[in-house]
Amino acid sequence: MAVYTQVDAAALAAFLTRYDVGTALSFKGIAEGVENSNYFVATTHGRFILTLYEKRVDAAQLPYFLALTTHLADAGLPVPRPIQDREGVALQTLNGRPACLIQFVEGVSVTAPNDAETREVGAALGRLHAAVANFEGERPNGLGPAGWARLAADCAGRLDAIEPGLEALVADQLASINAAWPTHLDTSTIHADLFPDNVLMLGGKVTGLIDFYFACTDIRAYDIAVTHAAWVFDGDGAAFAPGRAAALIDGYRSVHALSEAEVAALPVLCRAASLRFLLTRAYDWLNTPAGAMVTRKDPLAFARRLHWYGAATPEQILGR
Amino acid sequence: MAVYTQVDAAALAAFLTRYDVGTALSFKGIAEGVENSNYFVATTHGRFILTLYEKRVDAAQLPYFLALTTHLADAGLPVPRPIQDREGVALQTLNGRPACLIQFVEGVSVTAPNDAETREVGAALGRLHAAVANFEGERPNGLGPAGWARLAADCAGRLDAIEPGLEALVADQLASINAAWPTHLDTSTIHADLFPDNVLMLGGKVTGLIDFYFACTDIRAYDIAVTHAAWVFDGDGAAFAPGRAAALIDGYRSVHALSEAEVAALPVLCRAASLRFLLTRAYDWLNTPAGAMVTRKDPLAFARRLHWYGAATPEQILGR
Repeated sequence: MAVYTQVDAAALAAFLTRYDVGTALSFKGIAEGVENSNYFVATTHGRFILTLYEKRVDAAQLPYFLALTTHLADAGLPVPRPIQDREGVALQTLNGRPACLIQFVEGVSVTAPNDAETREVGAALGRLHAAVANFEGERPNGLGPAGWARLAADCAGRLDAIEPGLEALVADQLASINAAWPTHLDTSTIHADLFPDNVLMLGGKVTGLIDFYFACTDIRAYDIAVTHAAWVFDGDGAAFAPGRAAALIDGYRSVHALSEAEVAALPVLCRAASLRFLLTRAYDWLNTPAGAMVTRKDPLAFARRLHWYGAATPEQILGR
Repeated sequence: MAVYTQVDAAALAAFLTRYDVGTALSFKGIAEGVENSNYFVATTHGRFILTLYEKRVDAAQLPYFLALTTHLADAGLPVPRPIQDREGVALQTLNGRPACLIQFVEGVSVTAPNDAETREVGAALGRLHAAVANFEGERPNGLGPAGWARLAADCAGRLDAIEPGLEALVADQLASINAAWPTHLDTSTIHADLFPDNVLMLGGKVTGLIDFYFACTDIRAYDIAVTHAAWVFDGDGAAFAPGRAAALIDGYRSVHALSEAEVAALPVLCRAASLRFLLTRAYDWLNTPAGAMVTRKDPLAFARRLHWYGAATPEQILGR
């Protein structure tokens, strides 16, 4: 949560001359983005986010992300649009980093969503899945089954230091999810990280879907599973909220079909989503010094979800 | 450079109901302020900065800072105004921290100022000194002579690890500044930290004077010395820029008197200003782990200024 690459007023002014966006009125580093440096830029023409992609980001993947968000903005979704310069180029270089000027989108992330807000998010996810039907980009999911196995191997022998029994839980779930992993479901471009902090809302409506840097091609219903795990639990994963689960699915189905085969696969997909966040959080937990100025997210919040999904029927997951 | 205290949308919405500022449209943590957490808040009525004062800030001093900035805003200076709630209260509590909603001021910090910009800053400092003539608040300068001695003692025995000879330079200057410290000059409320990053500009004009958290009561001309040390050197203190020095003083004198006694004291005041920033930077340098996500500022940039001022006449400091 910091600005890693400093950009000064002169560099910004020179950078902005590439675009038809006027001149800078204000310029502030934003404390968001664990991976990137972000600035809020107000100009005489509007408001923007300037993102500089830091070393941990694979620059070769940036054209995919920018093509996807441009496609979604073109389709009318509330996705921040990458701004093209006068030559039609969105991906630039600034201070030695890949950089992009991106439309600013209003809205505030909801931290304690209600049923109505969760329904809107379900509908927004449905619209996203409808809009990518004609998006041609492809990107493998680096945090799919092979990715979980790699993360689990990286954490091997250390998980019980987080909580006794976590090592066995991960090994058991990894085996059982792999054995049950569906191969017959539709794939699609998915967001893969649609947590409340990646949704901006105002007055109960979705005004922004942001942070597509985990977007990839994978089982479409897995995106519902991720969103379900992210939105329908209270108490850091301790309490399932069936009203929100029903609202999420209802909202999604108001826009996009969800087949019986997809519903039947929700238990394994939701367990997989929980395992994915459990593992990335456990990895960060084990590899981030306790004193670092970064908030470590608790892996156990997803161990609790994993336990719940492990005992849940599709009907329960649907909130019925 | 981080947000230390997290504020969520619900807490922000509840907080804003105390004020006549409408409802939140956008809310972003800002990567500014080593000591505090800052958020950019856009509402239906305007734009604001929400500051939460963190533990290192002495809460007992906050009323002084807020009274000062309110006084300056009332006087028409481009100083971000603390917003009062419906009961006339500016200093609040949010998430267990002292907090204040503050007017947002446009502008961009200049990193390579030219003569004309430096003249405007001199004039702004003069206006600030004129406007505080009837400000009644008082605050001792914690980073005056006694403060430097304390910092030097804290760093004792370790300064030569930064650069051989630094220990002797500090000891010599501390003794000679104390011996020559003027006692006959006018005192005033001073900003005491008017570096380029604390001045916002647009189109060559000053649109914001910010960060008054070092403001105090001290020798008025010392504020000119700090501003001089901050604005009229290039190459990290290596090259004096006489044109900017002349412009700074010229701008100041266009608004506020600078007496012959004050001019005569500039060499010792400018050495003192350099020593103050040398010592606070050296202290941070020695006490910040090299791997911390905080940019350590180079103390030697002010050792270079100290050498220059040590050989300079008042006329040279005035850029003549």
